[in-house]
Amino acid sequence: MEAALVELKRRLGEIADLSRAGNVLVWDLEVWMPPRGGPARATQLSTIQRLVHEMATADRIGELLDELEPYAASLPHDADDACLVRVTRRQWEKARRIPTDLAAELMKAAVESYQVWVGAREAGDFQAFRPSLERMLELTLRKVECFAPYDDPYDVLLDDYEHGMKTEQVEEVFAALQPELTALVDEHATDEGAELLRGTFPTDKQDALSREIIQAFGVDWDAFRLDLTVHPFEVTFGVGDIRLTTRYDESDLSSLFTAMHEAGHGLYEYGVSDALDRTPLFGGVSSALHESQSRLWENVVGRSLPFWTWFYPRLQETFPAKFASVPLHDFHRAVNRAKRSYIRVDADETSYGLHVILRFELERELLSGRLAVTDLPDAWNTRFHELLGLEVTDDRMGVLQDSHWSGGSFGYFPTYLLGSVLSVQMWEKAAEAIPDVEEQLERGEFAELHAWLRDNVYALGSKFTPAETVERVVGGPIAPEPYLAYLRDKLDAYAAA
Amino acid sequence: MEAALVELKRRLGEIADLSRAGNVLVWDLEVWMPPRGGPARATQLSTIQRLVHEMATADRIGELLDELEPYAASLPHDADDACLVRVTRRQWEKARRIPTDLAAELMKAAVESYQVWVGAREAGDFQAFRPSLERMLELTLRKVECFAPYDDPYDVLLDDYEHGMKTEQVEEVFAALQPELTALVDEHATDEGAELLRGTFPTDKQDALSREIIQAFGVDWDAFRLDLTVHPFEVTFGVGDIRLTTRYDESDLSSLFTAMHEAGHGLYEYGVSDALDRTPLFGGVSSALHESQSRLWENVVGRSLPFWTWFYPRLQETFPAKFASVPLHDFHRAVNRAKRSYIRVDADETSYGLHVILRFELERELLSGRLAVTDLPDAWNTRFHELLGLEVTDDRMGVLQDSHWSGGSFGYFPTYLLGSVLSVQMWEKAAEAIPDVEEQLERGEFAELHAWLRDNVYALGSKFTPAETVERVVGGPIAPEPYLAYLRDKLDAYAAA
Repeated sequence: MEAALVELKRRLGEIADLSRAGNVLVWDLEVWMPPRGGPARATQLSTIQRLVHEMATADRIGELLDELEPYAASLPHDADDACLVRVTRRQWEKARRIPTDLAAELMKAAVESYQVWVGAREAGDFQAFRPSLERMLELTLRKVECFAPYDDPYDVLLDDYEHGMKTEQVEEVFAALQPELTALVDEHATDEGAELLRGTFPTDKQDALSREIIQAFGVDWDAFRLDLTVHPFEVTFGVGDIRLTTRYDESDLSSLFTAMHEAGHGLYEYGVSDALDRTPLFGGVSSALHESQSRLWENVVGRSLPFWTWFYPRLQETFPAKFASVPLHDFHRAVNRAKRSYIRVDADETSYGLHVILRFELERELLSGRLAVTDLPDAWNTRFHELLGLEVTDDRMGVLQDSHWSGGSFGYFPTYLLGSVLSVQMWEKAAEAIPDVEEQLERGEFAELHAWLRDNVYALGSKFTPAETVERVVGGPIAPEPYLAYLRDKLDAYAAA
Repeated sequence: MEAALVELKRRLGEIADLSRAGNVLVWDLEVWMPPRGGPARATQLSTIQRLVHEMATADRIGELLDELEPYAASLPHDADDACLVRVTRRQWEKARRIPTDLAAELMKAAVESYQVWVGAREAGDFQAFRPSLERMLELTLRKVECFAPYDDPYDVLLDDYEHGMKTEQVEEVFAALQPELTALVDEHATDEGAELLRGTFPTDKQDALSREIIQAFGVDWDAFRLDLTVHPFEVTFGVGDIRLTTRYDESDLSSLFTAMHEAGHGLYEYGVSDALDRTPLFGGVSSALHESQSRLWENVVGRSLPFWTWFYPRLQETFPAKFASVPLHDFHRAVNRAKRSYIRVDADETSYGLHVILRFELERELLSGRLAVTDLPDAWNTRFHELLGLEVTDDRMGVLQDSHWSGGSFGYFPTYLLGSVLSVQMWEKAAEAIPDVEEQLERGEFAELHAWLRDNVYALGSKFTPAETVERVVGGPIAPEPYLAYLRDKLDAYAAA
């Protein structure tokens, strides 16, 4: 039994090593790679994906799991080894459904398709991207078929990001949110304050401020990097090596929120118990849980009045011509302003959910075959107008804006909104545990909040299912009400003022 | 037979992909990795090394080679497939001598030891590095034993860098060089001109000049990057993805030569026939051949009067306070000045060989067991004084200066000098073929030289042995006389002036 555990951990460790090597290749691809490096990189990632898939689906892993079941059953449900056997069994059975060739083909096509998307987005040319997207959709549907029978093809894909969650649960949460969000946008969307956040902000100063903020949150530069990319993301190379990426736009301050967002992802990964390193239990448990942390730091903390009470003087010092005579409350109102806008990642908190709901609806249509790729831009533009009241006239501002579908990440989008919803539930629990948390934030002190999240959320890694994890932390399922109340409170505060 | 060839190429392609993934990890390690990333990276590289070794030594490769031998025998000696079978056979047989565990252990120990060396070098603390070096030596000797019986343990290691070459051939070349180099240093070493190359040269300007020069040489920024590191190197990720690294010292212009040197390595790799991609035939054939190209571009071209006739006006424009009133010939003399110095990579061309010979001698002593690691600094300092007439009082300026031994690269050093020797033989052949090459260089035109080298050297990749390759290009073996004549000509020209 001891020998079986050692062998299982050795095999899982090698799989983790190879997956993380793949992470390094993806990071370099998006941060540094010269233009002609694409084809070789796609082939390398495909080979790694093939090897990881072969190793992760080996018969031997099933034998070892069989041997270890009695041991695992003898342990408490939350013992690391019990979780390891449980989670490995689940992932092994799932991965074995997908032929290695298909897994490698998906990876290679995703890398190629991403390159095509980059060019098509720059050119605003959906037709240039269409064949790649059709190919990704076709491969994705082949993957879905590996899990037949299923209630809904979308369930199969959602499971990759939010294990155990069903599409109808998402629908239920979104159905509660959509009319409320629409009503909030209708009531509060305003252009007032927009000018306040536009100006000329040299990128070196934005970079220095970004680093100052996320270092205060808990980012340790001995274990983190922050680099530039087109589409910001976080990726983990190991317990002491977390890579954040961001982008700077000289004309606004959105980079500060991007840095806080990616730092939230990074702090989650950084806080996972070291004992889980090089196992499937390492890393954040699901996309929604991950997003709950990025949005907690970006929005619940990073757009709060206590946060800006601390940091606004630094911003005023840095850009005195712009902010010296602007009161804190005007600035705070501006960073929380509800607005109608085209780009999801630039959206305010209130309208953000509508951007996500649009994508969720369209993904479901594509996957069910009710919507053809060629009709996607029209469908996007029509529904976008219904949800957000704006006409899309340029696909760069519409269907081409996100990289996700180029990489075959269908089923990912809803987790953004689920995470936002959950971030408020988590914050409420943290605030119960730390009664003076707002006063701490006003002083730029984040250590106690970080420690609470680390101990109660991050350290768990992927030991439990997403639903179990949520239950452990907030005492119930993902629920939209606290999130809606939080948005209303913010918007009403200024509407009343 | 056709099926065997397809399968062999598929397997070799996957091995190449995984090796190149390892290259990306090593590059990131040396260029970007945060300090605490080391342990995870070492484990990842060890896992990749283990997998590469397993894949490269699989029984199945031997079976495929057996099946393909008649086909290969039916082809001309220089047919790609004939070379592929021949080279794969040789590498497969060699790799199978080394147990996978030992290969993985060597890789992991090398990464760890490199980290220790970085710290020890910074601190000038050889004792901190000693245990790591002892471990690398012990593992290296275990590797050597896999090739028993051998004439000389050093032959085994040299073969990794210069396949087929024997230690006694190196000794013979070095024996012809050492007294001549010593005599040249004795006669020509001077401090005159040293001040000319010292000053304050902002690194952004050095960077711009470096890029301008190597772009003129043939570096295509769609396929190359140039980044910063402690110990400059070149590494290839794919046919369209070549990474050069360099470093800048504000107080001198050495970075220009570093960039030319690494660009030489990069152009070699970049010029390999695309048809050889993802096979063992891709890439430069040996370390000496590689070094012949880096030193050809750095020294034979980059320290020549024709080159500086072209580029010196640009340097004068960039740093007018320093160079506006300095004649070209004074500058050219200064960049070719013979001197006695501590650091190999800063050495002039004439004394450079003595730095290499020192390391070659000490490596042989260490490997034979005649010299203990603990006595290495004393041995270094004693022999350094004999060869270069300087007292080493700080190990940072002595035994700790190079990373090679930390990575277990015993047997590598002699190839630096062999490459220098060969660079002059290659240049003479190129100059025969391009009678006006010097006039072209004076005009900043490098395309014809680059094309000659690509067609005659680079394109061959690793199709032939190093000795065969040298024979094909220069019509004979590596021979010291042209190199010595080249050095004498340069030094005498100014001595006479």
